[in-house]
Amino acid sequence: MTLDRSWFSESVDASGSAFSLKAAKIHEEQTPYQRIEIWKTETFGYLMTIDGCTMVSTRDNFLYHEMMTHPALNSHPHPRKVVVVGGGDCGTLREVLKHPEVESATQVEIDERVTRLSEQYFPELCDKNDDPRATLFFGDGIQWMKDAPDGSIDLIIIDSTDPVGPAEGLFGLRFYVDCVRALAPNGLLVQQSESPLLNLELITEMHEAMRKAGFAATHLLHFPQTIYPSGWWSASIAQKQGDSLTPRLDADAIARLDTRYYNAEIHQAAFALPTYVRTALDAIKGV
Amino acid sequence: MTLDRSWFSESVDASGSAFSLKAAKIHEEQTPYQRIEIWKTETFGYLMTIDGCTMVSTRDNFLYHEMMTHPALNSHPHPRKVVVVGGGDCGTLREVLKHPEVESATQVEIDERVTRLSEQYFPELCDKNDDPRATLFFGDGIQWMKDAPDGSIDLIIIDSTDPVGPAEGLFGLRFYVDCVRALAPNGLLVQQSESPLLNLELITEMHEAMRKAGFAATHLLHFPQTIYPSGWWSASIAQKQGDSLTPRLDADAIARLDTRYYNAEIHQAAFALPTYVRTALDAIKGV
Repeated sequence: MTLDRSWFSESVDASGSAFSLKAAKIHEEQTPYQRIEIWKTETFGYLMTIDGCTMVSTRDNFLYHEMMTHPALNSHPHPRKVVVVGGGDCGTLREVLKHPEVESATQVEIDERVTRLSEQYFPELCDKNDDPRATLFFGDGIQWMKDAPDGSIDLIIIDSTDPVGPAEGLFGLRFYVDCVRALAPNGLLVQQSESPLLNLELITEMHEAMRKAGFAATHLLHFPQTIYPSGWWSASIAQKQGDSLTPRLDADAIARLDTRYYNAEIHQAAFALPTYVRTALDAIKGV
Repeated sequence: MTLDRSWFSESVDASGSAFSLKAAKIHEEQTPYQRIEIWKTETFGYLMTIDGCTMVSTRDNFLYHEMMTHPALNSHPHPRKVVVVGGGDCGTLREVLKHPEVESATQVEIDERVTRLSEQYFPELCDKNDDPRATLFFGDGIQWMKDAPDGSIDLIIIDSTDPVGPAEGLFGLRFYVDCVRALAPNGLLVQQSESPLLNLELITEMHEAMRKAGFAATHLLHFPQTIYPSGWWSASIAQKQGDSLTPRLDADAIARLDTRYYNAEIHQAAFALPTYVRTALDAIKGV
């Protein structure tokens, strides 16, 4: 069949595949940084796209937002100061603030319009924006990290668009060096790292760059995400010290997070790597 | 963007979503059972579709075929006699025959043309068809199971199309009753059970029907599968006796399976259920 104009389609040229949702466009604007569009889909609720790429849908964002936050927060011994780079839809910030140990969470988003549109179309993701521990800062995450005092952050969450356009610098050695410096001794960084099926080379390059920047070890976790290319997504965790991650939260504490996907078993499961992925990551160890 | 005629698209009307591959159609035929098409895609190798639904691609079929076979085979104490219902592309049969414990593996496919086209376009999936332990039978799986002697099978693998058209009867109580009867005391059944995001109701209905048919317990496992709706797929395992599954194979035996996705960690991980899925399945326990 051919999809007519009643569908939104994102095609990934390099992968020759596309994902589509039956949808009507209800808003579009060009900001100084990117083109943002809002769609009312038939079965996935609202959808935000940036420069033609799916960002967030009402129906399946819980998968991404839970897995970008809770595995890393659960792996840090005392995550008090958290910084989200990107994440303008505020869904990541919301999950971070579910953790009572977090004393401050700063969202550093370059494009204020992403947040303002999220407040309008995804209010459930913004319901913790008024938390006294939250700061919404609109500006360049790369510069922000350069200016961050040494050892001042426990967890950096890089919740960015793909590594092209405004987000490209967030996947590079120089940025990671600033992150290592800004992290406290036990500090962790977690970053969305694309599809294990389509982007394995990017993932291994990221892990190499993280280690060259001074991180002691890196880890990969994976999860389903329907609206992203291949329907399968990953996040990479880099730790400043040590070589393994240990979950801190007990079952009761995890239950209080009120999650739909994440739980103690999923925490372990997400780090279990497919053989071909483990082989690729083992090959760069010691580089 | 709009996808033009250089793309194959499968839309799932009930989910309002679609998956597409840039592809040229190189073969089509109407069999007595269904319409089969073969496509040469730009980046996923060959693609077979049946009645407009994606069945198998060169690039990502390893995910499905490994996860439809090895978790169940590894959970059975001595899987000697295996029957594959459906599975005409022979990829499931191939994985089954990697296990030296298997003495006979019978593929019961209703449509011989699926297998003949797979031999032509997916020869790597058919490379064990000449194994002396393999039997390729072309006929109705429902009738075959009715005729199977009591207690004659260790593992039934139901590798069918969606529960509409020729495969509909494979998702019903009557068929499951025949399976229970045909299974030996330690017997297991594993069946593809659609998407945990899009088809949760179908999954719970299947598990209810399996228990009503006499299975002692059911389990769900999940894995990524890019070309299937939502990119996230599941299989359900029903056991004739007992209430839990224990992996039998050690790390060396698993390594000899020469898999790309499946390994000992993935085995455990695949059974870790998202909270909302576990809640839905717990709700039908004791029904």
